[in-house]
Amino acid sequence: MQDLLEYLGAIQPEVNKTLINEVSTLNTLVQPVATHILAAGGKRLRPLLAILFAKALGYDNKDIYPLACSVELLHSATLLHDDIIDDADLRRGMPAAHTLFGSTKTILAGDALLALANLIVSRYGNPKLTECISRAIIETATGEMAEIEYLRSTNHPQETYIDIIRGKTAWMIQASCQLGAIVAGADARQEQAACEFGMNLGIAFQIVDDALDFSPSAGAIGKPVAGDLREGKLTPPLHMYLATLQGEKRDKFLQKFADGSFTDAEVDAVAGEVRALGLDQATRDLADQYLEKAIDALQVFDNCREKTALNQTVDYVKNRSK
Amino acid sequence: MQDLLEYLGAIQPEVNKTLINEVSTLNTLVQPVATHILAAGGKRLRPLLAILFAKALGYDNKDIYPLACSVELLHSATLLHDDIIDDADLRRGMPAAHTLFGSTKTILAGDALLALANLIVSRYGNPKLTECISRAIIETATGEMAEIEYLRSTNHPQETYIDIIRGKTAWMIQASCQLGAIVAGADARQEQAACEFGMNLGIAFQIVDDALDFSPSAGAIGKPVAGDLREGKLTPPLHMYLATLQGEKRDKFLQKFADGSFTDAEVDAVAGEVRALGLDQATRDLADQYLEKAIDALQVFDNCREKTALNQTVDYVKNRSK
Repeated sequence: MQDLLEYLGAIQPEVNKTLINEVSTLNTLVQPVATHILAAGGKRLRPLLAILFAKALGYDNKDIYPLACSVELLHSATLLHDDIIDDADLRRGMPAAHTLFGSTKTILAGDALLALANLIVSRYGNPKLTECISRAIIETATGEMAEIEYLRSTNHPQETYIDIIRGKTAWMIQASCQLGAIVAGADARQEQAACEFGMNLGIAFQIVDDALDFSPSAGAIGKPVAGDLREGKLTPPLHMYLATLQGEKRDKFLQKFADGSFTDAEVDAVAGEVRALGLDQATRDLADQYLEKAIDALQVFDNCREKTALNQTVDYVKNRSK
Repeated sequence: MQDLLEYLGAIQPEVNKTLINEVSTLNTLVQPVATHILAAGGKRLRPLLAILFAKALGYDNKDIYPLACSVELLHSATLLHDDIIDDADLRRGMPAAHTLFGSTKTILAGDALLALANLIVSRYGNPKLTECISRAIIETATGEMAEIEYLRSTNHPQETYIDIIRGKTAWMIQASCQLGAIVAGADARQEQAACEFGMNLGIAFQIVDDALDFSPSAGAIGKPVAGDLREGKLTPPLHMYLATLQGEKRDKFLQKFADGSFTDAEVDAVAGEVRALGLDQATRDLADQYLEKAIDALQVFDNCREKTALNQTVDYVKNRSK
């Protein structure tokens, strides 16, 4: 992971400076909410991907930073809206913005960040970039809606779940890669490869997240263990778990999943069974299938330090434990 | 108003067709919410302004329609979010979207419409257009936040109020005019004039709205009379009313305005006094000052049917009674 870590270390200060700089152009009323969500951290994976693809294709202009940060701002905007929707108390272990600033300011700050992302991209004067980021916002919102549509449902196939996470998580990661490729003047084949890498990495990222939801360490990062079970999201570990159930036990599970009536003790018991059956690991194996596709997509690109780092982001997603 | 009415009649079917067409590209999950807010109607003032400015500058391509509709979609997105923020039950006399579809879908449909507006504009391949619409979203969200910041305050000057409505209402009307001018290839002076027209028309539009809030007919369009007094917004009629108060009556008003404790009977009494003092008319006089600036801005443009219709939109804003 040496190349990736060096890359991250090299770009993070400039990424954070750019984020602060862009947010400072917003009205002072919006800034505290925007600053709060950005200060909560995150690895800046999205800016990193944009920069890696741009550099892999020979684009070495420092003006890449605002473009790379646009997706991080977009991502922050969706987190603000999501936390209201989920009525979440915590985000990355910190109080969720709406618990500090109220729903009103949080909705509006999200809108301002969505627009700021678009405004930044428009400065590059390339309509392909604007189209890419607008499409990502639409697909993300649609994915989130689809997720809600299927809450507490156990009748849909795993493909439906994959479609949901394509929207809610993977599109924005794809957009990061695509923006980097477009700004570097990628040809159609290279741009397509960047999209395929991003989409598959994004799907895997979410699947690993769903596996981590059953990890005993989940509580340590400010999330309740098996939050997806509580919320009625049929993620891969639960889909596989359900397939192991029969008879009365299955009927009871279906009933409680449908009406959201699991007690804390029952949630812990299911989480324990999921782990005992190795279904968190089986979920990671599912993610690996998408990570292999992501690696394949990189074949189009010439060997370079950035390609090595991109391959290492795959390892990072594969191995992450929180 | 003949030219304006003919114009409206001529373009409205195509505007509505375009809106339906664009919304139909959204995922089927988002469509019912988007369709609901668009079906609630409205005069399509924003698309009209974009088309009038484009045509006044000689742009007669039918591809203007999606661009003109982008601001209407944006406007609809802000209405969806606003109704959640205000916890409004009604919008244009119909049930507000969030009361039918829930806050979650309504927030996400708003996000999707914001993004759709950007996506449509990006199709024109002109970064100036994208910058215009992104800036309008940011300024609108900022204006709405500023309005909330000054709720229940009576210490701020009228200029602060004007700054608030520049953002929350006028920027998007300005953007409609500016988009039409840009797409028609306006020179800097013409584009500036279109902006000045839109900004001043937008400010006047909101001030007239604030006067209408004290009209006895407000109830007929699904709004409570003197809603601004109930919500603690120091609009011009209330600013002027406050200036007439002295002694204990003033102290009592300030107290009740600050803590939102007016009874229905007290609200009706204040509304009656506002009307008896002619302050709703004085508010309309204030709007006239901005409408005159709007008319002045049109001097830059050659006489044509569209310029006549633009002058008539000024009359429409001046005289509207609901």
